[in-house]
Amino acid sequence: MNADAKPAGKAFGRLHGVGLGPGDPELVTLKAVRLIGESQVVAYFAKNGRESNARCIASPFMKPGVTELALCYPVTTEIPFDEPAYACELRPFYEKAATDIAAHLSQGRDVALICEGDPLFYGSFMHVQERLKDRFAISVCAGVTGMSGCWTAAKAPMSWGDDVLTVIPGTLPRAELARRLAATDAAVVMKLGRNLPKVRAALTEAGVAERAIYVERGTTAEERVLRLADKKDDNAPYFALILVPGEGRRP
Amino acid sequence: MNADAKPAGKAFGRLHGVGLGPGDPELVTLKAVRLIGESQVVAYFAKNGRESNARCIASPFMKPGVTELALCYPVTTEIPFDEPAYACELRPFYEKAATDIAAHLSQGRDVALICEGDPLFYGSFMHVQERLKDRFAISVCAGVTGMSGCWTAAKAPMSWGDDVLTVIPGTLPRAELARRLAATDAAVVMKLGRNLPKVRAALTEAGVAERAIYVERGTTAEERVLRLADKKDDNAPYFALILVPGEGRRP
Repeated sequence: MNADAKPAGKAFGRLHGVGLGPGDPELVTLKAVRLIGESQVVAYFAKNGRESNARCIASPFMKPGVTELALCYPVTTEIPFDEPAYACELRPFYEKAATDIAAHLSQGRDVALICEGDPLFYGSFMHVQERLKDRFAISVCAGVTGMSGCWTAAKAPMSWGDDVLTVIPGTLPRAELARRLAATDAAVVMKLGRNLPKVRAALTEAGVAERAIYVERGTTAEERVLRLADKKDDNAPYFALILVPGEGRRP
Repeated sequence: MNADAKPAGKAFGRLHGVGLGPGDPELVTLKAVRLIGESQVVAYFAKNGRESNARCIASPFMKPGVTELALCYPVTTEIPFDEPAYACELRPFYEKAATDIAAHLSQGRDVALICEGDPLFYGSFMHVQERLKDRFAISVCAGVTGMSGCWTAAKAPMSWGDDVLTVIPGTLPRAELARRLAATDAAVVMKLGRNLPKVRAALTEAGVAERAIYVERGTTAEERVLRLADKKDDNAPYFALILVPGEGRRP
């Protein structure tokens, strides 16, 4: 809440956490376009050896020749984010990312750290913000969340009237998933990947499997939407999610 | 999920539900700007005798002379949305709104129904979509939600790692609010207004009042952010909200 209070000084640049939305470059905000165009450095997370999704969304708005800073995750194979090994490797990674960004800021260069979705909602940006907020001025530009993109792709009204909506990581144990799914009006289950069979069982146990919608890469060209009941296999990317739309008050 | 399958025909226009984001006109997406500029009719909800917030956000992007359709809520005084009288009055209101929009669509005119936030997240748009989806082609353009705007205003990272985030209408009974607040990692309490004293009591009962942040009109010029503990009165607009940020895994 106090980052604006930090004295940026003339010598220091400002860090912008810039949300890019769920994938469709047309769902980028005007503010994000401006910040990407104005910043001397555009930084983004990427998996080693793979194109950054964030860079892909933002590339139409990047000035030719702008300085790019790729922050490459240390793991090349798919270690799920919920495994201890992943967290172990991530700490030094975020330390280095913060150091690399700080080097530009210290030289007076503004840095736009571009992120899919909304930076403050399960965002990697937050780990950088925590490390730099006491030393540099930081601003955040909100973005359309991935889940908004997915329920839009599904044309699914998610929450009505007094509906309670619960966002649940698919990484939780099956019994907890089932308990939370049974206790809410509407739900989004994030981080599917290899958790899909467990999530499917929890949805069934909670009695909401029939209402569940599976969405992959909502608002992108690779978008896939189907009733979970119609999805016969259990293959899902990590960023696929399940929607259980609410059924609340409708005047 | 099937609106795209509706035959729009050459004679019929298309209805676009267009999310405008939390209030800052710069947080409007490129797609929303395009749809507002391309549609023959721009429709919006408004309270009788008051300027429409949605129109205010969208006005920089409206073509001069575009046909406007104001859908005026029937209540001029502040009847809370959670009272039966409000629902009673809203049904004929939504019927008329759908009829007025249908008249334009039937004449082959595209209509952009502009809405604050995201159209499918507690949105009035959904009530129109339900009434017209079997007769007309409807598309939805996702927007930044009001809650994203509020946690951005508060610079509050909302959910980390495996955090469960619960969105709770402040209209619920105190005991249910307290129970849900105690059972989640992160929470957004919406629809404050006259519910604030009850919500405050529930936050205290759940042991999370110290972490609670009060946000009014996030991302607008009238934005107000303060720790709930520092808010001495219980006056709050209906669209103010409370954030309880998560404290999950941080590598």
